[in-house]
Amino acid sequence: MKMQPADLRSALYYRYATKKFDSARKLDAETWEALLDALVLAPSSFGLQPWRFVVVEDAATRDRLREASWNQPQVTDADRFIVITARTDMTEGDVDAWMECMAESQGKAPADLAPYRGMIDGFVGALDERAKRDWNIRQCYIALGQLMTSAAVMGVDTCPLEGIDKAAYDTILGLGYSGYATAVACAVGYRSGEDKYASAPKARFSRDHVVRIHGI
Amino acid sequence: MKMQPADLRSALYYRYATKKFDSARKLDAETWEALLDALVLAPSSFGLQPWRFVVVEDAATRDRLREASWNQPQVTDADRFIVITARTDMTEGDVDAWMECMAESQGKAPADLAPYRGMIDGFVGALDERAKRDWNIRQCYIALGQLMTSAAVMGVDTCPLEGIDKAAYDTILGLGYSGYATAVACAVGYRSGEDKYASAPKARFSRDHVVRIHGI
Repeated sequence: MKMQPADLRSALYYRYATKKFDSARKLDAETWEALLDALVLAPSSFGLQPWRFVVVEDAATRDRLREASWNQPQVTDADRFIVITARTDMTEGDVDAWMECMAESQGKAPADLAPYRGMIDGFVGALDERAKRDWNIRQCYIALGQLMTSAAVMGVDTCPLEGIDKAAYDTILGLGYSGYATAVACAVGYRSGEDKYASAPKARFSRDHVVRIHGI
Repeated sequence: MKMQPADLRSALYYRYATKKFDSARKLDAETWEALLDALVLAPSSFGLQPWRFVVVEDAATRDRLREASWNQPQVTDADRFIVITARTDMTEGDVDAWMECMAESQGKAPADLAPYRGMIDGFVGALDERAKRDWNIRQCYIALGQLMTSAAVMGVDTCPLEGIDKAAYDTILGLGYSGYATAVACAVGYRSGEDKYASAPKARFSRDHVVRIHGI
């Protein structure tokens, strides 16, 4: 069943960057599975999915990540905590893996996808190392957006964490030689009734300020 | 009304980067308004909203943008076409504007927000020019994600356009001295029954491949 525009609007209006989670309240399995699917199904440039989503389950690691996050309580108190990591490179091998996955899904041989691969290679070939990394990180932010919006429409709360010590995260999560590095993190759970930010009036620039109609 | 996990999953599975739009099919006003709200309400770092969403209405401009987009037909054929532009800097004036907006929404004086402002200034002060621009662009990708997911849950199709000639877009849209530059674009409408990509099997790395559980 589709969502009605008014319901979407309410859900997005209700959403806020949750500061205090109700640590006793857990997501049910079906809701959590749908959020994992939201990550897996997130769109990315050329479909390359230059990411890994690290779900941190153990309390000790979450304690350490909290220290690397200005001691923000969301890291330990939310039911779930996801670190979105971005591929640090984009190699032929990465593109190979994607071509194989795509060909298999579509019942083709990778060679059948040669024109598509040519486009990818052309695009990637024009990027220097930092541009590749930035490009991958931007894709991670699409996944973050899809995650937060998906949570919101199901009435699940989130808090994105961007101002974190990413190098410390990488160390804590042992990402050193993985080819992935922390891009951004997101706490997922349910707001506490005591979060004073939950009832703060929503602050946004007006629609006229941020939306510009070109051509009329 | 909240969305059920199974409905969310179907909607995200149904979504794909639409190549061929039905140019005769328009969004109704309520659905379009909800999508504009999805953009306005998108989360951003510190709430700074370093973006402008340019909705391109006139056919002549869309023709020119299509030329700057490898002639992709989505640019002209989708009901709506949105260019997400990112602030090219983050000045004291930008932060001032946000503090004023926030203070007004919350019935406070901007001075009451001094501690929050201090955090923002500390963060921004540590960024060089390119890092600020990259940071702003990443926020635009959250908005892109929120837009695409919001559309999907309402049964609306989208196609993100990233491999576009952004400098040409900036020229065509007259962004030269605006302090904003094209980050990414998104076509919004309804898929054509003739889009062969609509029925292509969904290709994604497996969940085991992209989701890593840390700590069990």
